[in-house]
Amino acid sequence: MTMPAIAEIAALLRSFDNILILTHLRPDGDTVGSAAALCAGLRAQGKTAYLLPNPELTDTTAPYFLPYAAPEGFQPERVVSTDIATTDLFPENAKPYADRVDLAIDHHPSFERFGRVNYVRPSAAATGEIIYDLLAALGPITAEMALPLYVAVATDCGCFAYSNTSARTHAVAAALLRTGIDFQAVNKTFFRTKSRKRLALEAAMLSAVEYHDRERVAVLSVPLSLVAQVQATETDAEDLSALGGQIQGVDCAVTMRELRPDVWKFSLRTGPRVNATSACALLGGGGHAAAAGCTVEAPFQEAKRQMLEAIAKIAPDFQAS
Amino acid sequence: MTMPAIAEIAALLRSFDNILILTHLRPDGDTVGSAAALCAGLRAQGKTAYLLPNPELTDTTAPYFLPYAAPEGFQPERVVSTDIATTDLFPENAKPYADRVDLAIDHHPSFERFGRVNYVRPSAAATGEIIYDLLAALGPITAEMALPLYVAVATDCGCFAYSNTSARTHAVAAALLRTGIDFQAVNKTFFRTKSRKRLALEAAMLSAVEYHDRERVAVLSVPLSLVAQVQATETDAEDLSALGGQIQGVDCAVTMRELRPDVWKFSLRTGPRVNATSACALLGGGGHAAAAGCTVEAPFQEAKRQMLEAIAKIAPDFQAS
Repeated sequence: MTMPAIAEIAALLRSFDNILILTHLRPDGDTVGSAAALCAGLRAQGKTAYLLPNPELTDTTAPYFLPYAAPEGFQPERVVSTDIATTDLFPENAKPYADRVDLAIDHHPSFERFGRVNYVRPSAAATGEIIYDLLAALGPITAEMALPLYVAVATDCGCFAYSNTSARTHAVAAALLRTGIDFQAVNKTFFRTKSRKRLALEAAMLSAVEYHDRERVAVLSVPLSLVAQVQATETDAEDLSALGGQIQGVDCAVTMRELRPDVWKFSLRTGPRVNATSACALLGGGGHAAAAGCTVEAPFQEAKRQMLEAIAKIAPDFQAS
Repeated sequence: MTMPAIAEIAALLRSFDNILILTHLRPDGDTVGSAAALCAGLRAQGKTAYLLPNPELTDTTAPYFLPYAAPEGFQPERVVSTDIATTDLFPENAKPYADRVDLAIDHHPSFERFGRVNYVRPSAAATGEIIYDLLAALGPITAEMALPLYVAVATDCGCFAYSNTSARTHAVAAALLRTGIDFQAVNKTFFRTKSRKRLALEAAMLSAVEYHDRERVAVLSVPLSLVAQVQATETDAEDLSALGGQIQGVDCAVTMRELRPDVWKFSLRTGPRVNATSACALLGGGGHAAAAGCTVEAPFQEAKRQMLEAIAKIAPDFQAS
């Protein structure tokens, strides 16, 4: 199956009208920003286009989504998905469209080609990079399109700090900024703001961090009691495993989150010495070499012991402390 | 005084040889990266060029500087400064060159034109952006030049998150990444790594944060006892005022650092409601509208009370709690 060129996708979109755009479960900046920008671009072409309401928007993503939300009863002729790797990631209200997606656009390597036409570019840091090319092929990129596109691109590459960032990512950002958008407000909201509850979680985790293996392994934990004490929401607790990955000298950051009493979800973030998937596989989990996870049913000390044993088995030069 | 064009500066550099490049006190990524890249670029032109050793390099900046450090006894014919706003910011060993700087290149609005020839561009997020243009005018930009330039540009704009970032900043980053540099290692070192002592300081500050003015004013403190307990270095304590500025809902973050017993250095980071300079001016300090500081000699509670009173005087709608 050869992949269509961007110009062909643009031509396809020109032939569409009354378009519904789908976003994924637990929507992030990339799915929301890509969908909103595409919607704005299609409207600039004189099309009727809307986003299917997504019940899981957050305070940070909602402002970019809501101006384009479909009214009750909108009957689409055409359906497009943005940043959705598989139909398993369709929100409940999108399930009825699973077998009638006319065009699926994504950047995940695991993309499952569930659309009638599919466009995937795994080298893109964000689906937003692809939407940029598409909108540029359709016509001039306005600030209205550029703002959600900046959200899409910047959030998926951790504000240009993650390893998926490329020269192309920066080139797209440069073009978006040239439209005069208030990217500073986006940066402030997404990268320079933390909720008080989030900060309280981080402070408690750091106060109780434990080191092993000559201080190269750090164990941070989020017991249910801590979440209750802080009254933290899911948003507050998102991506807490990044915290341990920042600690200087640590090449294996273990984050343990208590899902239910004595049920611990482990997330490992590791450097080249420690294969995170190998360690997690010993406990029934999996993932990537530098980021993996598993779940262990046991009291805290026992669960932690099991993980440290697993790491000791696979990490060269592990030193029991 | 009209400013020379980049092409004229490039021509001037072509006429130089045996060049010594100066960096500023408490050297940051921009002064080090700009100087190292310029040195590499001059050497690519067949010139002899070195950086004057800077006694205050950190673990993160030293690797970019040391390959270009001047040997003992190097006698320069020409002297160039990068990212130095005023001769007050010359390190001690650079003072003898203060009245013989042939070319001074900088991006600070406060630049004092102390060179025989001066080039300043306050719209640049980093001096590195200017050096990029200069090296591009001299010849092809190699990876050896691009790596320190990326350090210069990325550190001064907070990895593209600060408000000084522009379309031009991203365009320069795109060009630098195209040379194939390992920018990921730079991002990991400068933006995704914190020392254990730094994290301990942050955790303690967050655990003890106080809120006032309907939770819009946050007060974080770093008493001498905390620094001693953590055994924190100056590097660990750098820019701690950024922490309070991240707290959601807070538009006036007050960070109090105890310099000597009962001597507190205040740093304010504020949103549009609170003019940081106005508040600090009431206590003998100054700065910018969104970032200012002052020093108060008083015990902790009294110093804090004085600052809250100053903020109450200048902040509209201040609510005593």
